[in-house]
This record gives sequence, structure tokens and C-alpha cells, in this order.
Amino acid sequence: MSVYLVGAGPGDPELITVRALELIRACDVLVYDRLVSPELVEEAPADALRIPRDPLTQEQINDLLVSYSRAELEVVRLKGGDPFVFGRGGEEAIALVAADVPYVVVPGVSSLAAVPANAGIPVTHRGISSQVTMVAGQGAELDFGALAEARGTIVIFMGLGRIEEIVAGLLTHGKEPTTPAAVISNGTLPGEEVVTAPLAQISRAAQLLEPPALVVIGDVVSLAPSLTRKEFTSALS
Amino acid sequence: MSVYLVGAGPGDPELITVRALELIRACDVLVYDRLVSPELVEEAPADALRIPRDPLTQEQINDLLVSYSRAELEVVRLKGGDPFVFGRGGEEAIALVAADVPYVVVPGVSSLAAVPANAGIPVTHRGISSQVTMVAGQGAELDFGALAEARGTIVIFMGLGRIEEIVAGLLTHGKEPTTPAAVISNGTLPGEEVVTAPLAQISRAAQLLEPPALVVIGDVVSLAPSLTRKEFTSALS
Repeated sequence: MSVYLVGAGPGDPELITVRALELIRACDVLVYDRLVSPELVEEAPADALRIPRDPLTQEQINDLLVSYSRAELEVVRLKGGDPFVFGRGGEEAIALVAADVPYVVVPGVSSLAAVPANAGIPVTHRGISSQVTMVAGQGAELDFGALAEARGTIVIFMGLGRIEEIVAGLLTHGKEPTTPAAVISNGTLPGEEVVTAPLAQISRAAQLLEPPALVVIGDVVSLAPSLTRKEFTSALS
Repeated sequence: MSVYLVGAGPGDPELITVRALELIRACDVLVYDRLVSPELVEEAPADALRIPRDPLTQEQINDLLVSYSRAELEVVRLKGGDPFVFGRGGEEAIALVAADVPYVVVPGVSSLAAVPANAGIPVTHRGISSQVTMVAGQGAELDFGALAEARGTIVIFMGLGRIEEIVAGLLTHGKEPTTPAAVISNGTLPGEEVVTAPLAQISRAAQLLEPPALVVIGDVVSLAPSLTRKEFTSALS
């Protein structure tokens, strides 16, 4: 049987794709990330195996996916956001191919644009930003020189824990201290919190926020006050 | 009534979100982009007004959205991909706010990661790319110096028409001619075509492809052969 590497979207359960929801509702095994909405996990059939990813290593996950597939079970591997945007989908895909297990990627709505959108921030906007750089704030070194030079919008995933270092790196490399910045915690979820401030003040402004959070830097942030913010959070029907 | 600025996803109609499909099925007026799947347009109620965006100016669109909303009609503005990723959603939102019309953004799956994913290319991959730069190949000048320096993956939207100039710009500014590159035309749709080649040869390799197309540049492209490619195109059920 195939393994489906499926994106759950940015948080709000209704932002999953039609295809992904169909697959969850028909699966035998659901292996899901910590940040996936509980409402989506409940959509699996009553007799489906539900396996939280959290206590397992990546290698154990890979082995599980292969084993269940070989046992002729339909496996959905449900990941927050999109499987290939900082989601390690590629690693699981390579493990599946190596084991000769067919897999299908079902992309999801990434937090990249969805989370800023819900806070009234378009990551691109004609005349303001036609370029977006997205980086992971964890796991890899950042090239602050190139990042400070990049045009348009910068979106940092998993960057809240290192925000002081990130801001200092950008300022040292010449990014304007007045560049508008935002930190959005629990984006698209009922607990969403948004803080905006000039880059030089954003660490202090965001110090009470909790992960998961997205950091957005660039002139598009200044559009937020002119864009009414609307909730679109709702339950699956 | 509210105007919903809704993303239709990258092409495959089943990659629309659950929330977006619900809104289409309940709307009075559907204003839709040329690249939106006809199957999604058919999901609107039989008596709904269906208005193709194409022959209209942006200002006419803005006026239409305001007028229908004021006429107490439920309006869905359906855009390819995500409304805020090169989708001019921000411009429409600003026009709606200016006219005191409430709006809601419903994000969609952008082509950014979904189209490469369907061609076996993860835009991020641990140890290979933890940064993605996305730019519009049309409408704004590109900063080839900064782009050639950017780490990780470059994804160019609407870049096929200028691909020779883009490649020349990157090579002139020091990007390695052997950097793996791909052009994906009609991504996630039945007519999908994928061409991969080293950066220096990609223009020639892609010369028979037609827009809409996405250009992907970076080492992640070389993962495609080790990732079995699977179709996930299917009809709405």
C-alpha cells in the first residue's frame, strides 16, 4: 500500500485540503505531528491506529511507515503545514523509496503566507515586496549578511527562541532598525497572538509570546493596520 | 456581506482547502482567475453568478467586489494558489477596507512547494537547503547579485518568459553553472511537464514548455531522481 505524506495546514483544521481530509477519513494508520489539530486526528476512522510522532526518532518513524505499508495498511503521515516546507517530508520519502514502498505527497497550506495573512500581512504586495525569503531559525546557521541584503519580506520559521540573536545579526549586517517586524504565535488558531514593532524592538515586544511562532520582517508588515483582521477559525463540519 | 479572498491551490482541484470549497458551494457570486480549475468553478451553486476575472482591470474587480457585497450578496474571489503569494490579494483587501466592506482571507496551497513536490523536489531538505527565496519573474526588477548569493533554493514564479535573462543574470553574478535547475509547467495538473538540467543549460532544455511554469534552482533539484514521482491529480468527489 502507499504511504501518504500529507500536509495538515497551518493550524485551523478547515485549512486542510479536500484530498488530505479524504485520505485521513479512509486510513488504517495515522501518524501525526504534535502541532496537528486534534480535530483532524479525530477524523480518522474509529478503528484506525493513531500514532503520535513525538516520542519517536526520525528513524523509528521511517521504519514504522515502511512496516505498516508492508502489512497492507493504508498509512497517512500527517504533518503540520506542508510536508516539504521544513517538514522533513523529503527524508521520509527517501526512506520509503529505499524500501520500495510507493508514496504520494499531498501538499498543505504552509504557515509561510497563511499565518501572516491572518494577521493582515500579505507576504507579497505590488510595489512593496515581490520577493520572500523563508528560513529556518533552528537547525542550520543563518547567513546574516545575505539575509540583511535580501529584498522584500523575510519569514523565519521556528525563530522565536533565537530572536535576539537573529535581530542582532540582521542589524549588524546593515538591516534598518526601523524595518517593520511582527511575531505571530499560534497563527490561525484560537490562541493566536500578534506583536508588531520596528526590528530593533521586536525581541522585547515579543518576549511573552510562546512557540510555535513565525517572525516576519519587511515593509509589508506596515500594511497590517490598513487591513482589517478577521478570524477564519472554525470547526470541521 | 463579507467578501472572501480565497486561494484555489496550485491546480489540482482536490488541493483546495475544506473551508474554501464550503464557501464556493454557498456563494452568490464567484469571481475567478483564469488559472482556477473549471471543476472548482462548477462547484458554485447553479444560480450563482460566475464572473471570470480575465477581461477586467484590477480597479473594475475591486469595484465589483464592493458592489456585490453592498447588494447583500456573498462574494467569493477565487485566486490561483494563495491570495497573498503574488496574488494581489492585498490590493483587493485594501480596496475593501477603504469601502468599509468586511473581508476574510482564506489561504490556499501555493505553488511554491506543492508544484516542486509533485515533481519529486522538496524545496527544503535537511543538510541541503534550509532557506527558500521566492521571487516574481515578472513585474519587478530582480536583484541578481543578492539572488546569486542567496543560500538554499530559489523559486521563480512567472519566470519562463524571461528565463534566459534570469539565468544570464545569475551566472554573471557568480552562481555556479552546474547548479541543478528545473522548470515545471502546469504543475499538479494532468498536463504537467518537468524539465531538469544544470542552470547553464536550463533555458534551452525548457524552450518547448508553456506557461504557467515555475523555475526551481538549487541542490534540492538533484533529489528528484531518488524520489519516485507519483500523480495525485484526481477529481472532486
